[in-house]
Amino acid sequence: MRELKVAMLGFGNAGRAFAELLLNKKEEIKQAYSCDVKVVAIATGSRGSLVNVAGIDLSKACRDMETLCRFDTDSRDYSEMISMEIADTVEYDLLIELTPLAIFSGQPAIDHIKAALNRGKHAVTANKGPIAWAFEDLRRLAEEQGVRFYYETTVMDGTPVFNLVEETLRMCRVTEVSGILNSTTNFILEELAKGKDYDAVIMEGKERGFVEADPSMDVEGWDAAAKTAALLNVLMGAGITPDQMDRKGIEDITIEQIRDAEARGKVIKLLCRGTIENGKVIGRVAPEEIDKNELSATIAGTSSVVSITTDLMRTISIVEHDPGIEQTGFGVFSDLIRVIVNSGK
Amino acid sequence: MRELKVAMLGFGNAGRAFAELLLNKKEEIKQAYSCDVKVVAIATGSRGSLVNVAGIDLSKACRDMETLCRFDTDSRDYSEMISMEIADTVEYDLLIELTPLAIFSGQPAIDHIKAALNRGKHAVTANKGPIAWAFEDLRRLAEEQGVRFYYETTVMDGTPVFNLVEETLRMCRVTEVSGILNSTTNFILEELAKGKDYDAVIMEGKERGFVEADPSMDVEGWDAAAKTAALLNVLMGAGITPDQMDRKGIEDITIEQIRDAEARGKVIKLLCRGTIENGKVIGRVAPEEIDKNELSATIAGTSSVVSITTDLMRTISIVEHDPGIEQTGFGVFSDLIRVIVNSGK
Repeated sequence: MRELKVAMLGFGNAGRAFAELLLNKKEEIKQAYSCDVKVVAIATGSRGSLVNVAGIDLSKACRDMETLCRFDTDSRDYSEMISMEIADTVEYDLLIELTPLAIFSGQPAIDHIKAALNRGKHAVTANKGPIAWAFEDLRRLAEEQGVRFYYETTVMDGTPVFNLVEETLRMCRVTEVSGILNSTTNFILEELAKGKDYDAVIMEGKERGFVEADPSMDVEGWDAAAKTAALLNVLMGAGITPDQMDRKGIEDITIEQIRDAEARGKVIKLLCRGTIENGKVIGRVAPEEIDKNELSATIAGTSSVVSITTDLMRTISIVEHDPGIEQTGFGVFSDLIRVIVNSGK
Repeated sequence: MRELKVAMLGFGNAGRAFAELLLNKKEEIKQAYSCDVKVVAIATGSRGSLVNVAGIDLSKACRDMETLCRFDTDSRDYSEMISMEIADTVEYDLLIELTPLAIFSGQPAIDHIKAALNRGKHAVTANKGPIAWAFEDLRRLAEEQGVRFYYETTVMDGTPVFNLVEETLRMCRVTEVSGILNSTTNFILEELAKGKDYDAVIMEGKERGFVEADPSMDVEGWDAAAKTAALLNVLMGAGITPDQMDRKGIEDITIEQIRDAEARGKVIKLLCRGTIENGKVIGRVAPEEIDKNELSATIAGTSSVVSITTDLMRTISIVEHDPGIEQTGFGVFSDLIRVIVNSGK
């Protein structure tokens, strides 16, 4: 039985969903892959950290976070180490980057991952910043170090997009990508179509948890641009950053435009696109009118779609229906399993 | 550089599309996987066979089939060996089963594959008969022999369905499957909706190649039932055969029903479903009314969809858009690559 020591940076909703899934599947993983997965460290920004190279008590960590809203300072594993110290010094085999997204820099997540890769450790990230801002550097570093670096969760939670192309569309060259990847704008456009006022929709969205306190990152297309950059960097080798996208948000869409489109059998959605023009990958995020009998027109609420066109398989689409936080947890979990399967360790 | 000797049984459109792709990618496969893939035998039913353990001339085989509509009897590799003899006696590493479907028995394809597996050879099939009628036997035999057995092409051509679940949804338990998998019925229902007469639709479909000479296998839901059996056998361990499905075709659907559904914002499609009832997997093929703003309603013409519900990832859908014969060729090709990657050889 081999052992895989995991360090988690970040322990928000996604991290806890992953931890719960790992606890549920720990014995099954042992049986299926002869691998004992141990979480040896968890770092949080302001709720303390846990470190124990023999393995922390993950159940207690989940429980404490729920009841105390922080780690138990009396625990023998309690530590004040910050995430970068853990990335740099703790003895782990796999670093899982789950810290909050810094959408205009990708930091400090990029540095966390670099620290792990430079030490010859595998890395998994659910944080799209590093993939949107520094993918090629990180990919090359992982390759040089002979370690695994996976990031399935960064686009469409656990729905296979990157793993789909890498594992099941081998030798295909991706020539085009499109998708609907931002549920906040999906929600807003749908509610506006019902005739509601923009401010009322934003307020209702905040109450229902579909809209962030500051909705501008979603409304102006930055979140979609970061996801599109991640898609194009991984699938098309674009070397593009979110600020290099041709980006337009939904802030100027009026109820009149939505109704006018509807009268013509169309619906307005925030579309993400990547194409090749003159040998260069071009990324674009903008509201577009879609014919109502096209697949994309049916992507509502928190559902999302990516369509991938390749030289050998034309266009296939993959759709995630109404995901919950468990599907984000599964994304991280599936990358963990992929590390186990594909690492020589 | 290792070598992989391939025997192909059948050389129809799919076989030739695969052969063309293999010819195009032969050097790339060598570079990427250090493997030299050689086709050492091709069997056809009535157009002769080719056998040469040093490798036949695949370009010439494709050319001859196009110009002579059979293999060249003057070729030094020409042989009168039938498919079963080739499966039983030729020195190959991988058997690719591409003979015509026998929808009510799966034979002789099942015996071809058994012959290969019993000899400790890998097998790939594009023929859904064996997966619909004998999957569990074949799977167990391959496992006992420690060889690879893949069948991606049997449902939705090269679109990853089986590989998707096996490679990217690891440790997920499939609890439900649904899909639209028969393009002939899709075409007929769409044309009927335009107000055309049933017989006229069938005649037009035959001319345009969407409808077989005998349309009953499609119209009565047998083709969809075979694909559903394949899905449920592989993904849900159903051990079910096409004749055990709750099966209803579209032969009784009238233009009045279609119009009535349309008036209620619905469209009629032939749906395939697999569910678990009282611990048993139940398969069902039947025309159903679908709400027009559901994903399935947008699956038109030769496009198809499979939706897969699992315990860990809820529901995801994968859609194939307007495939050609090249996408069937890719299905076989992707399984070949998977054999190369996953075989210890």
